[in-house]
Amino acid sequence: MKFFSDNAAAVHPRVWEAMQAADSSDNAYDGDALSARLDSAFSDLFGTDCAALWVATGTAANCLALAAMCPPHGGVVCHREAHIEMDEGGAPGFFTHGAKLMPVDGEGAKVTPQAIAALTTPIRNDVHQVQPHAISITQATEYGQVYSAGEVAALGTFARERELGLHMDGARFANAVAHLGCTPGEITAQAGVTALSFGCVKNGGMNAEALVFFDPELAALTRYRRKRSGHLQSKGRFLAAQILAMIEGELWLDNARAANAAAQEIARACGNRLLHPVQANEIFVALSPAEAAALRAQGFDFYDWPAPEGRPGAARLVTAWNSDPGHVAALAQAITRL
Amino acid sequence: MKFFSDNAAAVHPRVWEAMQAADSSDNAYDGDALSARLDSAFSDLFGTDCAALWVATGTAANCLALAAMCPPHGGVVCHREAHIEMDEGGAPGFFTHGAKLMPVDGEGAKVTPQAIAALTTPIRNDVHQVQPHAISITQATEYGQVYSAGEVAALGTFARERELGLHMDGARFANAVAHLGCTPGEITAQAGVTALSFGCVKNGGMNAEALVFFDPELAALTRYRRKRSGHLQSKGRFLAAQILAMIEGELWLDNARAANAAAQEIARACGNRLLHPVQANEIFVALSPAEAAALRAQGFDFYDWPAPEGRPGAARLVTAWNSDPGHVAALAQAITRL
Amino acid sequence: MKFFSDNAAAVHPRVWEAMQAADSSDNAYDGDALSARLDSAFSDLFGTDCAALWVATGTAANCLALAAMCPPHGGVVCHREAHIEMDEGGAPGFFTHGAKLMPVDGEGAKVTPQAIAALTTPIRNDVHQVQPHAISITQATEYGQVYSAGEVAALGTFARERELGLHMDGARFANAVAHLGCTPGEITAQAGVTALSFGCVKNGGMNAEALVFFDPELAALTRYRRKRSGHLQSKGRFLAAQILAMIEGELWLDNARAANAAAQEIARACGNRLLHPVQANEIFVALSPAEAAALRAQGFDFYDWPAPEGRPGAARLVTAWNSDPGHVAALAQAITRL
Amino acid sequence: MKFFSDNAAAVHPRVWEAMQAADSSDNAYDGDALSARLDSAFSDLFGTDCAALWVATGTAANCLALAAMCPPHGGVVCHREAHIEMDEGGAPGFFTHGAKLMPVDGEGAKVTPQAIAALTTPIRNDVHQVQPHAISITQATEYGQVYSAGEVAALGTFARERELGLHMDGARFANAVAHLGCTPGEITAQAGVTALSFGCVKNGGMNAEALVFFDPELAALTRYRRKRSGHLQSKGRFLAAQILAMIEGELWLDNARAANAAAQEIARACGNRLLHPVQANEIFVALSPAEAAALRAQGFDFYDWPAPEGRPGAARLVTAWNSDPGHVAALAQAITRL
Repeated sequence: MKFFSDNAAAVHPRVWEAMQAADSSDNAYDGDALSARLDSAFSDLFGTDCAALWVATGTAANCLALAAMCPPHGGVVCHREAHIEMDEGGAPGFFTHGAKLMPVDGEGAKVTPQAIAALTTPIRNDVHQVQPHAISITQATEYGQVYSAGEVAALGTFARERELGLHMDGARFANAVAHLGCTPGEITAQAGVTALSFGCVKNGGMNAEALVFFDPELAALTRYRRKRSGHLQSKGRFLAAQILAMIEGELWLDNARAANAAAQEIARACGNRLLHPVQANEIFVALSPAEAAALRAQGFDFYDWPAPEGRPGAARLVTAWNSDPGHVAALAQAITRL
Repeated sequence: MKFFSDNAAAVHPRVWEAMQAADSSDNAYDGDALSARLDSAFSDLFGTDCAALWVATGTAANCLALAAMCPPHGGVVCHREAHIEMDEGGAPGFFTHGAKLMPVDGEGAKVTPQAIAALTTPIRNDVHQVQPHAISITQATEYGQVYSAGEVAALGTFARERELGLHMDGARFANAVAHLGCTPGEITAQAGVTALSFGCVKNGGMNAEALVFFDPELAALTRYRRKRSGHLQSKGRFLAAQILAMIEGELWLDNARAANAAAQEIARACGNRLLHPVQANEIFVALSPAEAAALRAQGFDFYDWPAPEGRPGAARLVTAWNSDPGHVAALAQAITRL
Repeated sequence: MKFFSDNAAAVHPRVWEAMQAADSSDNAYDGDALSARLDSAFSDLFGTDCAALWVATGTAANCLALAAMCPPHGGVVCHREAHIEMDEGGAPGFFTHGAKLMPVDGEGAKVTPQAIAALTTPIRNDVHQVQPHAISITQATEYGQVYSAGEVAALGTFARERELGLHMDGARFANAVAHLGCTPGEITAQAGVTALSFGCVKNGGMNAEALVFFDPELAALTRYRRKRSGHLQSKGRFLAAQILAMIEGELWLDNARAANAAAQEIARACGNRLLHPVQANEIFVALSPAEAAALRAQGFDFYDWPAPEGRPGAARLVTAWNSDPGHVAALAQAITRL
Repeated sequence: MKFFSDNAAAVHPRVWEAMQAADSSDNAYDGDALSARLDSAFSDLFGTDCAALWVATGTAANCLALAAMCPPHGGVVCHREAHIEMDEGGAPGFFTHGAKLMPVDGEGAKVTPQAIAALTTPIRNDVHQVQPHAISITQATEYGQVYSAGEVAALGTFARERELGLHMDGARFANAVAHLGCTPGEITAQAGVTALSFGCVKNGGMNAEALVFFDPELAALTRYRRKRSGHLQSKGRFLAAQILAMIEGELWLDNARAANAAAQEIARACGNRLLHPVQANEIFVALSPAEAAALRAQGFDFYDWPAPEGRPGAARLVTAWNSDPGHVAALAQAITRL
């Protein structure tokens, strides 16, 4: 019974079907009919003109976005525990040709205008110090916290005032939208987001993420950079098929709702073990080593997590679109019994 | 009836099956059982210890190989019409952090020790001139020409003498092996090749190529670079599955033989229109604009090609593992009738 | 009696004086009064608003210029024997983050619109092929040839039509202006040049070159890149002093005229040994190995050069601002006597 | 009366003399006799074989050192207020092709093995997280603190155990040696330092720093990188001359002693205003805005500094090799009178 991560879960049957349907086409790269439909499909979804490129990984999507918004001599503000800072093997430095990540702190891995201002306002406006050019936030955050539309809009306003781009790492964007019950446009285009990494892989896809630009010039530039980074697949139709299967219909939201609901069921069993409110599909709980061992002895697999002060230990539990209801219920019961 | 390219052909049913069988596993990145099997599967195939990494594209495979063999201040010798020089959107410059491609000429896009020596011997051994660090050849070449085992070995010997790495872009490696009837090791490890981009996508795969290192230290380094370039997929098992379906069994050779045979059938109809001997699955033919138009009017699609001197025009015809025998026969007849 | 190169000649006394006069100031970086005067001094010289930055080397000037005009995924057209292509150790690849140099051929190392068009027109306008973004020419060329105002203007027009930047490597710009008897503006700003590497080091300076932008936005960007490449010196006043000593007055032209005149004196002795017309301060002559040895036996030092077809050998002779008249006369006589 | 910085002070007369003496030589790049003497001169100074390269700036020296020790996918641990992190405009990212600086905290801008271990030990040894490859420390630190030989040796031992390179930014290395009264080798080669940026510019030089490698292979590699970054000057003899004037004799130590003594005189007047012990030539003092204004009204120029907690304001005062004794005495008196 695995609660390690959502990033290796099975592929949704409708995604498989869409991929198989794409097999008969044989236009190369992004010259096929499915790839050609991405821009309009996302424009419909977000209620505004946008341009979307498929890439195989969230790291590629994030870093192509950053490279489009930040010159090599600039900096990108992000949370100290952001995926781009902690878990992408230095990919931002590669794609941006050495731009600097500028980490800030914030509860639940959330970034605020105040935290960014505290970091960037003292930076002298001269060539000796790296100047910020963009902000990157994660929705939902690495601790499963969801920015409200108002919170994103405050960052968007701040970004516009400071002439910074605003990137959203949406590896779990669907979970955030499902939690908020808002439209996808309300927390992106309407809130001042420049580029969004729209995640599919953690949400029932196989190996396709969409990089959505609300500024079409950046998309045009990024098409060159996608090729140059080896991310232009010759059978790109299989990536487009995955993405369209997700968003033309409500599959992306249905899958996220399922994962979120499973997380809520577990969360209810956790009581004051919870280290963060559960808003998406990740549950961070205080667990002593003995308790963790007890759960594992019952067949539950999950990652240990660094223990916050005053707690004997911690763990991260992640649900997915296809989390087995029986496993979820069993885990909730097991935690209750601890 | 499309003879544009093999790079967008359908995915072979056995590849589909292998991918679907991989769905139930859920280990992330390359921590799954299929990915773990790659090293031994390729070591068996090549008859020597080697290490293999999956990546999604040939461009990524090629450029990760070059980056492993050439420092940013070095150079890589290749043919002037090599894919890395002509068709990868500057990806070698990106992955190597600005190393220089050093093009040489050669019949049929083949590189020889003589041509390389003519280019590199005059280079002064000082810091003002970029020093060569590697050679990259394409097997089969961009004109469908196949290096014999002896030709590769001559390059391997030359490379070793000059302390250069030797990379083989094997986007159509299977077609070359099928043509030669040799073992895969004879034209790689035994001939002094350092790294091979083992192509699957043009040969019935979907989006997985294998990057095979005959020097395991380079593979270890490249695992970091793969992640850093956004090419470490979280559901990597689907790439490993494609590759294993190809090589554990003779599928890779069967598919290449089919494509080669189709090319031979067309070649026989071309007579002295042939611009290069047909050895793999590409046919380059002299065609006047009127003849090209006549073929297109009969439903045959293909790319025009720059006309060599003394010819009124030219075209490239490419067959694939699944070229329709009826279409192939029809094309051969149509060319005969021209 | 050295005729190796002008790049290590002594520093002109007026340059020394200017440097010493700068010692008493103590404003750091480019915050001093001399550095602040560069923009207006060059604007006066070129008869148009421009912005100028000091850097220590021609390589830095050239490559900062290219990086300002060409994105990492783009290309820069230059002559196959251009300094940036042959003798800068891959620096263009470093400063541009991997952009591609696209060499063309041309008599006397000159580039023409026709040659550029022949190279670039066949490039498909897609992401698979590197797109040209700039042209770089050398004035005077690596073979001492001088572009006329009309020739530069033709390139400037071509560049504007194709939306390419136009860089001029003016390591020997002074020699070219002295030869043409034109104003410096006529072969730069008025002819469509975007950025000029204005050479001082070969012309009596110590270690300061001026990078002149006729587009001030590129200069602003380049100030960041200069710092980032370690080229912002804290005692920059000593570089500004060198440059101002050259251009506020006619020292730059006087020195170039002296070097050119010395070259003419030698050229007159060379007769049909001359491989190129002598227009600046470099003389390329046909010399058999025995003749070269004979000259060396008389105390003349110079570099051998690759022999053109039909010639038994060749040499390059370079004069400088301070070439000893006695040495020059002696060399002319010795060649005459050969 | 300027106490802004030592980085724009006048050039020492003996440095001027050495530069002028170098004028008559005319070997280009580092082919001259002075440049050729650097390796042996530094080997004598440090009591061990080492290789030394001149470069024009401390930023270039630091970043070439880092690039020699850390691959693009790696990281370099440094203090959060290190010059490379705060004041080099992102140059480390440029020279290393995007490696990551990993800042740690520490009193007086000093780094300790404990602080590094706390940062790096939790880093998982996998490709998702950037792995540390080097440590960079500043001697004396950005707050004028001097690492003892024992402190450096502890870092050297730690670095060796973890297989990390150890770089020392010695922009004020002379001041540190003068303070400690040790040999230069004791706090570098003997303590496990891999590469040292040996500063001259702040200590009476004009525009030459020495990059000293205690591992000769790294020096060989760096010669290519120096050229590639545009830092190989054609009249490099003028840089070698500056450096040799400093170290062949005790000029480097005499100058540092003078600056240190001036700092001590001011420090004695500061009493408990001192924010850090004064060990080199920088004095950090608590000053209210009114007090700072009062000093400025008397003609003293200096930079404000961020005030530590509980202090009304702060300032940085820097002395130089040529600080006017009268100015120093006047400043000391003025502070006493506050």
